[in-house]
Amino acid sequence: MSDTLIRGATILTMNRRREILVEADILVSGDRIAELGRVAVDAVPPGTEIVDGRGLIVMPGLVNSHVHTSQQLGRGIADDVDLLTWLRERIWPFESQLTPEDQYVSTSAIGVEMIKSGVTTFSEAGGQHVDAMGHAVSDLGLRATLCQSSMDNGEGLPEGWILPTDAVLERQIEQNERWHGAADGRIRHWFGLRTIFNCSDDLILRTKAEADRRNTSVQIHVSEIPEENRFARETRGASTVEHLARLGVLAPNLLSVHCVWLSPREIELFGENDAPVVHCPSANMRVLGFAPIPELLASGVAVGIGTDSPPCCNRSDIFDEIYLAALIHKGKRVDPTIMPAESVLDMVTVHGAKCLGWENEIGSLETGKKADLIMIDPREIGTLPIHDLVSTLVYATHSRSVVSSMCDGRWLMRDRKVLTVDEEVILSQVQERADAIRERAGIRLQSRFPVIRPA
Amino acid sequence: MSDTLIRGATILTMNRRREILVEADILVSGDRIAELGRVAVDAVPPGTEIVDGRGLIVMPGLVNSHVHTSQQLGRGIADDVDLLTWLRERIWPFESQLTPEDQYVSTSAIGVEMIKSGVTTFSEAGGQHVDAMGHAVSDLGLRATLCQSSMDNGEGLPEGWILPTDAVLERQIEQNERWHGAADGRIRHWFGLRTIFNCSDDLILRTKAEADRRNTSVQIHVSEIPEENRFARETRGASTVEHLARLGVLAPNLLSVHCVWLSPREIELFGENDAPVVHCPSANMRVLGFAPIPELLASGVAVGIGTDSPPCCNRSDIFDEIYLAALIHKGKRVDPTIMPAESVLDMVTVHGAKCLGWENEIGSLETGKKADLIMIDPREIGTLPIHDLVSTLVYATHSRSVVSSMCDGRWLMRDRKVLTVDEEVILSQVQERADAIRERAGIRLQSRFPVIRPA
Repeated sequence: MSDTLIRGATILTMNRRREILVEADILVSGDRIAELGRVAVDAVPPGTEIVDGRGLIVMPGLVNSHVHTSQQLGRGIADDVDLLTWLRERIWPFESQLTPEDQYVSTSAIGVEMIKSGVTTFSEAGGQHVDAMGHAVSDLGLRATLCQSSMDNGEGLPEGWILPTDAVLERQIEQNERWHGAADGRIRHWFGLRTIFNCSDDLILRTKAEADRRNTSVQIHVSEIPEENRFARETRGASTVEHLARLGVLAPNLLSVHCVWLSPREIELFGENDAPVVHCPSANMRVLGFAPIPELLASGVAVGIGTDSPPCCNRSDIFDEIYLAALIHKGKRVDPTIMPAESVLDMVTVHGAKCLGWENEIGSLETGKKADLIMIDPREIGTLPIHDLVSTLVYATHSRSVVSSMCDGRWLMRDRKVLTVDEEVILSQVQERADAIRERAGIRLQSRFPVIRPA
Repeated sequence: MSDTLIRGATILTMNRRREILVEADILVSGDRIAELGRVAVDAVPPGTEIVDGRGLIVMPGLVNSHVHTSQQLGRGIADDVDLLTWLRERIWPFESQLTPEDQYVSTSAIGVEMIKSGVTTFSEAGGQHVDAMGHAVSDLGLRATLCQSSMDNGEGLPEGWILPTDAVLERQIEQNERWHGAADGRIRHWFGLRTIFNCSDDLILRTKAEADRRNTSVQIHVSEIPEENRFARETRGASTVEHLARLGVLAPNLLSVHCVWLSPREIELFGENDAPVVHCPSANMRVLGFAPIPELLASGVAVGIGTDSPPCCNRSDIFDEIYLAALIHKGKRVDPTIMPAESVLDMVTVHGAKCLGWENEIGSLETGKKADLIMIDPREIGTLPIHDLVSTLVYATHSRSVVSSMCDGRWLMRDRKVLTVDEEVILSQVQERADAIRERAGIRLQSRFPVIRPA
């Protein structure tokens, strides 16, 4: 890996003071940022690649804090249907038909989509084929947390998804030993808890203890629908969040995803326990409702942004989620001043890093941190003019403006060409595998409009 | 203008039966569609250009039913501020500083953005320099309705925006004679009414009568904020919509924009009077609230979609508005089945055409209609797989997938290159003019983050 010097760029550092450096340079040495500011060209090591950054914005690689890479081939399979149909007649049958080879292609395809839209780190939401995900992430060059979708009880789920509590843990421990710290440390293995519907208290407690022992994190879907809180009250005597707090597992290394139906007390509990949350704006709009994100942020909670499930967001595009995150809460409250652009940028950088327990290494561009960065070209008809750089990035930038991406000091994409994997080879497999999985799952979709083949 | 034959495409006709023709051809003769279905190559006139449509989707050029082309250079000038600041301290001062030359560049810039995102027809929301808009539209090759932002009273508005009632009408009549039917009929001149805050009943009635006499339409912003209905009740004794109905102006040629704060009775009034409405999803999210669009559609109202004001949507991108229109109402009501993909496609095609009174000529691909069409390449990592074509177009298609565009039988863009105007020349003027206008308007924006120029 040669060193790299990017010169003359506008650098959005996202450091503690949120400094923007103009006409500035950034020197990458190995996998880390060696210098920021003005770097003398004759002071860099021989063989350093010099990159012209003039006119470009360099910012931290974005963090996608929740993404179901095993559902990418099912994008479009469950549109405009109710939640139960979505889950039981489309997603579960589809996802349960994935082979490890399908999983590799699925993770690779969404990985390329993420690279092209500025993501350098993502948190996998939990699937069935963690090894295949791991191999795909290794090849993509991305940074990621991976986990098995884990549960020890539940109804109507595909065969094999539910295991006895001991087996759920054993499988993850075995994966943890294989994947935690793999790919030069770019991969971290997490423990998974699907939802409170599917996880016994015994599993929740032992999972958290195991994660603590292994210095890693746990991920759980929390407070997605009102029915969940009713279920938790009936079976646990408290809402999901109150129950997790009472169990003592609400902590910085428990990542709670969605958190839509929270009481004011539950919002406080996240703050008091320094427990991070992931906001998935398009999933909120599609099926869940509005999460109290401004209140969570005001309580000091680290809130990341996730693209969630491709059959739910349909666009696995972090720039679209950024746009939605900035807009939807304004509309809900008819208040154009909440969720200002700078808060949303925090969410996909420093907060995302904190959600993943990776804040010492990524989330901002600072000397000594990992060289995870993207380059954005704002000079296009859909973006200009720039009156306010931060708001331009949030409101008027499409993912197509991401021109280059680096993770761990290695270029993933240059001038919109993905360098780590063969995009064309991956793309050529997407439709065929998706059709085959849909067939195997027995899912029949009727065309919305009559289809005619002219004679 | 030579004839054109597109062969082997998937054609989304949006005809009455909403037929999708697969492996189908479309023959364009002059400015109209001559044939659809299977067209024998040896039967087409000599000199016909043959275009390979295999793998591409051909659909009607999209209709952007409300767009402030005079605010494009102010994109990003008013983010995250309250409505009064937005209007009085940013938009009015900025827009009032535009010269006719600025207006030409502003309309040209957003015109190119629209061409690249699949729009072939738009309805101008009303600005100060209609002649400059008209020249820009002529050059862009787009189809458009233009109008002067018109008012005969109001407070705090820039000098010269308010004229006596007679003068308001005289100016528009003069414009109408110059522009109605111009550019081979691609331009229609409309009459404008800004809002009920700024228009006397005398102006409203005489404007509608003049539009009827000249066989054209009137556009008005309606029911944007609750305060508007309070104002209307105080000054007119009824809400805006009830008052317009009582005046007898609610009609197929009165286009009401926004319509956020409607009562059930007002929704019925639109249906009873066959009066069309424009929905602007991002503006709704940004500052206005949720319009009752599912109810308007259920009442049989033609509802178009508009990108509205660039300093409000920031992305003047109809595919993003399509995505928002399909998502936000689901989130508001926590009902993933409302606003299905096919309804949203109707809104940007056949409904949009009806909003503009142009439904006999555009909005669907049918023999004899105008050749306004776009070609979409769905084969990209952010779109595939396709399980359901209609939902893929609505939920998983970005504007970047629009590869070619034709309006009135003339190519506006081929393989993503705009052919009618020089995109680079326009782009090169955007930032400089935007900065100069902001300076003249005395608008000072503070950087959200500290900006440092390294020594």
